[in-house]
Amino acid sequence: MKSLPQIEGALEAALDAVNAGCPPGLAAALRHAVFPGGMRVRPRLCLAVAEACGGGDWAVAEGAAAAIELLHCGSLVHDDLPCFDDAAIRRGLPSVHEKYGESLAVLAGDGLIVLAVETLVKAAAGSPHLGKLVLLLTAAAGMPGGLIAGQAWESEPRVPLVAYQKAKTASLFTLATMSGAVAAGVPAEPWRLLGERLGEAYQIADDLRDVALTSEELGKPAGRDAALGRPSAAQQHGTVGAIEKVEALVRGAIVAVPPCRKPELLKTLILAELGRLLPKELAVLVAA
Amino acid sequence: MKSLPQIEGALEAALDAVNAGCPPGLAAALRHAVFPGGMRVRPRLCLAVAEACGGGDWAVAEGAAAAIELLHCGSLVHDDLPCFDDAAIRRGLPSVHEKYGESLAVLAGDGLIVLAVETLVKAAAGSPHLGKLVLLLTAAAGMPGGLIAGQAWESEPRVPLVAYQKAKTASLFTLATMSGAVAAGVPAEPWRLLGERLGEAYQIADDLRDVALTSEELGKPAGRDAALGRPSAAQQHGTVGAIEKVEALVRGAIVAVPPCRKPELLKTLILAELGRLLPKELAVLVAA
Repeated sequence: MKSLPQIEGALEAALDAVNAGCPPGLAAALRHAVFPGGMRVRPRLCLAVAEACGGGDWAVAEGAAAAIELLHCGSLVHDDLPCFDDAAIRRGLPSVHEKYGESLAVLAGDGLIVLAVETLVKAAAGSPHLGKLVLLLTAAAGMPGGLIAGQAWESEPRVPLVAYQKAKTASLFTLATMSGAVAAGVPAEPWRLLGERLGEAYQIADDLRDVALTSEELGKPAGRDAALGRPSAAQQHGTVGAIEKVEALVRGAIVAVPPCRKPELLKTLILAELGRLLPKELAVLVAA
Repeated sequence: MKSLPQIEGALEAALDAVNAGCPPGLAAALRHAVFPGGMRVRPRLCLAVAEACGGGDWAVAEGAAAAIELLHCGSLVHDDLPCFDDAAIRRGLPSVHEKYGESLAVLAGDGLIVLAVETLVKAAAGSPHLGKLVLLLTAAAGMPGGLIAGQAWESEPRVPLVAYQKAKTASLFTLATMSGAVAAGVPAEPWRLLGERLGEAYQIADDLRDVALTSEELGKPAGRDAALGRPSAAQQHGTVGAIEKVEALVRGAIVAVPPCRKPELLKTLILAELGRLLPKELAVLVAA
């Protein structure tokens, strides 16, 4: 995957653009939230879909990919806050509020939402798809069915598991697949199902990792779902049931790849990604 | 001013659009953050500038005005959080975190940023000025010189007062004047100075109110600037000096109104607004 250096470069450029004149603490907190990154799975998916659809205006796809990752990083900063997960570590390092304090963590999360929009609009300013791309992003981020709404379900006495997971995790995956398609100049809607299935698979794999791995292996506190009484597919279906569900979703994702120029590239990526997500012994089961 | 019902209507419509399927607690927190409102001074300024510039596409101006107010309301929700002002009341009612808890307050603030962008883009989707309008909004909201950066200066050991106030308060006023101009199809830049001067005047008037009024009169905790050791023009210049500064800024704002179709309408509005902002005994001094 050559896309990783492109994504890191686009993220660097986005942060560099707001550095001069920015309060130094906030600038440092923003950087800490974005680097070093995780697997950058959402922006890589976005670029892979754009490429599979024929590329189109590559700068637009790159801007969309960076925007998705900035949004994701911002949501992690807020998720880690004491009033949510109260997580002191993230990606094996102190979380943003642990290192820079709660005020700057709230502001860094806010700032990353704004920076995501700004990065996308700067990249797509000349594109006929600008409005569509921004509205995909706001739908995935906001209400009623985006990331923020997903997180808010955790404050409700009764949580509809499917709506919750779709909003909290699948939303950024559908944003990735649909934005990749739009950036390449093809209709977005046929790419929604792929994003939904990958997002759900990812969420369940994440639930499994939360149960199966130690905090050190995870780079963040383990066993959080159970400790916080949060809905978890691993708990709901049991470990074996959850693995079977991931397997079914991955097969379903492969099937859901719409007709495009380079479907095989995308299918290979999907299999590789999901294998990486699961703890090794579980990945073997899925690959079988 | 006929614009107030339009603004309330646009805000209602924005919230209504995300209601169905939204987690009920989040939906209620969003509504509580926006209604009942304050003076809606920023969106009214935006519409007044658009009208003074000849109107243009009125739906675009209305969307921009609503977006500015949503952004403002979101920033108040986060400003009131325990890690910032720790304010239990706002506009005479419980603040969002007081009423709905800290988690939903963080999410409501996040959600209002996203909703601001979404509302603007929906209104301006067909406009040739879409990209420009969104970039004005993100610059005013984000880094290095927007609202979020302004708030982050409060976490720094040394605070540059002018940069701080420009970012924290003037940014949404320049957004209002410049967006109003762009919505009407005229260049934004000549309208920046007016917004800067009004924003600074507003900030100093707010500092004065914080010193001069009781919590009941303010509808939020009084004496917060001093209690939190926050930079305040009222403290820096003394009450009389601060009133003189407001007066000079209002005169400067009047002078800064660029050539346009209906300058008198705008000048009348500016004088009326500033009079309303100051405690009565101070307003007399300014009007003199």
